[in-house]
Amino acid sequence: MNIGLDIMGGDFAPREAVKGVQLYLTESKSPASLFLFGDEPVLHELLKEFQITEHIKVVHAPQVIGMNEHPTKALKEKQQSSISVGFHLLATGNTDAFISAGNTGAMMVGALFSIKAIEGVQRPTIGTIIPKENGKTGLLLDVGLNADCKPENLDQFAILGSLYAQHILGIDSPRVGLINIGEEEGKGNLLAQASYPLLKENKEINFIGNIEGRDLLLDKADVMVCEGFTGNIILKFAESLFSVTQDKNIHHEYFDRFNFENYGGTPVLGVAKPVIIGHGISKAKSFKNMILLAQKMIETDLMGKMKISFQTK
Amino acid sequence: MNIGLDIMGGDFAPREAVKGVQLYLTESKSPASLFLFGDEPVLHELLKEFQITEHIKVVHAPQVIGMNEHPTKALKEKQQSSISVGFHLLATGNTDAFISAGNTGAMMVGALFSIKAIEGVQRPTIGTIIPKENGKTGLLLDVGLNADCKPENLDQFAILGSLYAQHILGIDSPRVGLINIGEEEGKGNLLAQASYPLLKENKEINFIGNIEGRDLLLDKADVMVCEGFTGNIILKFAESLFSVTQDKNIHHEYFDRFNFENYGGTPVLGVAKPVIIGHGISKAKSFKNMILLAQKMIETDLMGKMKISFQTK
Repeated sequence: MNIGLDIMGGDFAPREAVKGVQLYLTESKSPASLFLFGDEPVLHELLKEFQITEHIKVVHAPQVIGMNEHPTKALKEKQQSSISVGFHLLATGNTDAFISAGNTGAMMVGALFSIKAIEGVQRPTIGTIIPKENGKTGLLLDVGLNADCKPENLDQFAILGSLYAQHILGIDSPRVGLINIGEEEGKGNLLAQASYPLLKENKEINFIGNIEGRDLLLDKADVMVCEGFTGNIILKFAESLFSVTQDKNIHHEYFDRFNFENYGGTPVLGVAKPVIIGHGISKAKSFKNMILLAQKMIETDLMGKMKISFQTK
Repeated sequence: MNIGLDIMGGDFAPREAVKGVQLYLTESKSPASLFLFGDEPVLHELLKEFQITEHIKVVHAPQVIGMNEHPTKALKEKQQSSISVGFHLLATGNTDAFISAGNTGAMMVGALFSIKAIEGVQRPTIGTIIPKENGKTGLLLDVGLNADCKPENLDQFAILGSLYAQHILGIDSPRVGLINIGEEEGKGNLLAQASYPLLKENKEINFIGNIEGRDLLLDKADVMVCEGFTGNIILKFAESLFSVTQDKNIHHEYFDRFNFENYGGTPVLGVAKPVIIGHGISKAKSFKNMILLAQKMIETDLMGKMKISFQTK
């Protein structure tokens, strides 16, 4: 198993990325081989400092795509960047997964155009973990990849999210809720109204109906589906709860769980190979968790299961 | 000044509504005349109990529209209900404002069809107060009246919200932010993309650009504009923070401000007369605050200012 990792992506790269690699290798009993993409001299220096010698392969990628660069333009012009090289090795089968905390847009564009969607998937999606107030976790998707959606997209997000919840989060028969502004069928905007019957008739998911804003933190649905506009607002609002409570000196383990660093990164669901997008503020723990997530996605053959699910449609 | 109040609306009516009246009359130096709509014998009993004798006029309304009744159907069939009677007296000029914590749908339908929109206003809206982390308050709108919107609607919400923020919340030149999933112009879903230039060119508002989910609790914009789907999800998510923190025994004055009871009710903005919709869980303090809000809306002639603003367009 070969996992590719962009060492140059993120606000605290490359140091925290390499520290994450060290954490992973120290804690893992049978670690995967890690392909590290970045500037070779810098990388060798850090690997030496952190005494990392095994299970790694350095791939020279002297360019970096900055956080504010235009994704498509940057990917085209910087073919020697860590993100471009990472996607190239994933696309050619040299690696089995790719992780980066770099330019989010470039990661999305790369995932969609270098790796491509699973056959039958109209629009890949990204999700995020939402900490439930009873200690469990929910999956919210889409959180920004698809700002405008059709009902069929939401229906597919529900399938992708259910498979992720089942195989990665370990939730049997995950309950799918449609995020809406009322409980009953027929409520909502045009998109939600049209999506409800599709979800209801979808035999591959366990649809429980509409859920409202007040249910997001409750243990009502495991997979919470909406278009990427609403999902992104919810995600960033939820993220802000961690910083707001920190600023106010409100310390409680529940709000600590809104520190999205704990969750590693966001997988792009619906593309043919595992691609994980890290938060710009990722530190060592995030990088370690993203490597573990990539490993789990490969081990459970999540993408294979998604392919089968969409073949039978 | 005559303010109409539905005594039968809300989970804790009629007792808490009458208690609210008592609070208002006790604390107010020059109270308005209150028209109380409800079952006369019940009302007289309560008025006696709370020793309320002055500044009130009881209007018999023996029927009640239940919380789960179909709004349009109920308004048509129950013409002697407190909500129907309340709107009738407002429409005929016997009262200058109407307040109810009863069936929200019936209140909205009543506001739109008995009172009608201000000329030029395409779609009236409802907003809510969002407690900012620095102690200030923001206004979020729409929060559910308009699940699907056009760019022109958002542009009008910005004007209505700005006038409310200025005259009722006392904010000079309120900063208007467009709720979006990115900071730069051009980001967002089709609606947000098309709304941005309208807001930018609108000389009646102080538009500061896009705001994201993470900015909702920060003091970035005073008036936060979006369609009613996203707004309703944000509102109910924000409301849930109060109960979640209560359940977890996290007590902090900031989260106490998410107890929406403090704010009284939600005015319907863009209709020709003041209509205030209370939360179903309204207690005495809410009712008092709603009466005070109605009084302020009348005293500042908010609706008159809105009319002028839309006349000049």
